[in-house]
Amino acid sequence: MKLKADRATLLKALLHIQGVAEKRNTIPILANVLINVTDGLMTMTATDMEIAVVEGISAETLRDGAVTAPAAVLCDIVRRLPDGAVVELDQAGGDAPLGLRAGRFTTSLNVLDVDDFPSMMAGALPHEFTIASQALRGLIDRSRFAISTEETRYYLNGIYFHVAETPQGQMLRAVATDGHRLARVETDLPEGAAGMPGVIIPRKTVNELRKLLEEGPEHIGIALSDTRIQFTVGNVILTSKLIDGTFPEYERVIPTGNDKILHVGKKIFSDAVSRVAAISQERSRPVKLTVTQNLLTLSAASQDQGTATEELDDSHVVYDASPIEIGFQARYLNDITDQIDKNVEFAFSDSSAPTIVRDVDRPSALYVLMPMRV
Amino acid sequence: MKLKADRATLLKALLHIQGVAEKRNTIPILANVLINVTDGLMTMTATDMEIAVVEGISAETLRDGAVTAPAAVLCDIVRRLPDGAVVELDQAGGDAPLGLRAGRFTTSLNVLDVDDFPSMMAGALPHEFTIASQALRGLIDRSRFAISTEETRYYLNGIYFHVAETPQGQMLRAVATDGHRLARVETDLPEGAAGMPGVIIPRKTVNELRKLLEEGPEHIGIALSDTRIQFTVGNVILTSKLIDGTFPEYERVIPTGNDKILHVGKKIFSDAVSRVAAISQERSRPVKLTVTQNLLTLSAASQDQGTATEELDDSHVVYDASPIEIGFQARYLNDITDQIDKNVEFAFSDSSAPTIVRDVDRPSALYVLMPMRV
Repeated sequence: MKLKADRATLLKALLHIQGVAEKRNTIPILANVLINVTDGLMTMTATDMEIAVVEGISAETLRDGAVTAPAAVLCDIVRRLPDGAVVELDQAGGDAPLGLRAGRFTTSLNVLDVDDFPSMMAGALPHEFTIASQALRGLIDRSRFAISTEETRYYLNGIYFHVAETPQGQMLRAVATDGHRLARVETDLPEGAAGMPGVIIPRKTVNELRKLLEEGPEHIGIALSDTRIQFTVGNVILTSKLIDGTFPEYERVIPTGNDKILHVGKKIFSDAVSRVAAISQERSRPVKLTVTQNLLTLSAASQDQGTATEELDDSHVVYDASPIEIGFQARYLNDITDQIDKNVEFAFSDSSAPTIVRDVDRPSALYVLMPMRV
Repeated sequence: MKLKADRATLLKALLHIQGVAEKRNTIPILANVLINVTDGLMTMTATDMEIAVVEGISAETLRDGAVTAPAAVLCDIVRRLPDGAVVELDQAGGDAPLGLRAGRFTTSLNVLDVDDFPSMMAGALPHEFTIASQALRGLIDRSRFAISTEETRYYLNGIYFHVAETPQGQMLRAVATDGHRLARVETDLPEGAAGMPGVIIPRKTVNELRKLLEEGPEHIGIALSDTRIQFTVGNVILTSKLIDGTFPEYERVIPTGNDKILHVGKKIFSDAVSRVAAISQERSRPVKLTVTQNLLTLSAASQDQGTATEELDDSHVVYDASPIEIGFQARYLNDITDQIDKNVEFAFSDSSAPTIVRDVDRPSALYVLMPMRV
């Protein structure tokens, strides 16, 4: 294998790929990147056996071949080459080291057997459709904060993507929950997605995909089966196993009768939450909301440090129902308001029942938050 | 005590002070800030019993008095208040809580007894002088990286400031060493400093002082005795104990006969060090320099990953002595070149003897670096 490529092109691909390669050295070859030149076309691949990323790279290829070399070291070295450098990669085949040359810098990297590099076959992916990158980003950004990190409830360790029947017709929906809060976001169903099964996409896949979307093209290709999903983001293909489990019937925990409606400005509210919560050093930082006629009082207390209170009056708050007192974790409140542009709507039932939160200007997203006793 | 002050003014002072207040809660009052209004003048003080920072603050003072309250919480709250907020502090005296009000935000902070707040008397400070902030910054920046972190050699845990006799006459000198490298920096002796004793300023003091210099005035007042030093940086007074120990006779470890002189461009050299060292995942990342007639070859090897080499030729290197091979830790090399603007001078003796490094354009700084076997 022999090729020449621009430092910037290689670096961009290696940065994509690095996140997938395993850092822990339990299976050494998973820390390697597979560099392949076939019929003059160059690709780089990394996998942790759950996810594989393959990126096509524009290079001047001089000889076909394949080699695996340490991804982290290669990325670190390419990063430190000067801007504009042309990088030559050259490997004679077999277990010969991979040579890298750029100007008067050379490195010789140990390789591992290409045949030992696990290939992740996607198998047949019967459902195929295209989605706007912006819509996919919206689904991810407004739900992933609620993904559970509890490994025992592995079926909550991802985002549940599925087709939902709604009053507006069929929609593509993303749901995530950790039992304390739930995020439900939807977008128009892309053509061709109608028959897809509901799938749970693992958190690591969601995060790696989200990085690719940062700079990717306007449209993303998705193909999936019951067990695999594949995203085509420009010249990058990310293939992932799906979580093999059943997502809970989440609609049951979304209350329908919450009729105490509070509207409040997003920025002033989330700033006030942070300020009053600053009094407490506890991890959960509970904040109490006391709501009366067009008046919201936020308060927090810490035995060691003291108390803090902020009032938001009718210049920021609209509330016309019977008074309520209810407590939440400060971080949970802010995780949700971070997804909201300008105006927050709370729909309360009582101080021990789940509360619904919405972005007044974006009805496609809905959040459920469990209160805590304060 | 009662006063009004701008959020920005309070925040700036609290950020200065926070670094000195103790985070660990072994002695609770050391986590507090002392807020004092006497004759209408407001100060805030924090101390860890080794260092005390007192800052005069411009405020509209309404009632004299003193109170101590948790520094970290107060800083966190003030940081989260809106830009331009006017903050009112009000405490009735005794163990009444400290009230803080800004707009419709209020907090009530638990206090600890003012009488328990340790006062750090500086005692008589017979040596007083003024130094340009820029000169003091230069002494600190070019030496503090070499301060030892080994607690058993406590007398190396700071910078040794003293008056040195040099061919240019008396100079004010800063020296730090950890046994592997040594930095010696000097500046013109300020008027009034001639009789000062040599003192070892502890690392934490150096770091807190350096933060104050970031935005401080052009001239800094220094006063000291054998056991205490005091810096006056605008409206902030930092008082510190000195390290009670004897700094080693460092001149003995500075070789005088090193006659193999290498000149190399700083940027290309430090970039090349980082590149070749990237092959190694070891903490020490050894780099070998092989120097022959106007040619410097940097190389590094790692058993797991491979080898890396870079050559710098006569467009970057001047060397005319007999060839030498010598190894250094990559980080130690870069800690030194970080202090150098454009051109680095190495003076070698042999591959196992200390090497001298200088900034060609700034003869006031000298570095000594121990080689390692590679």
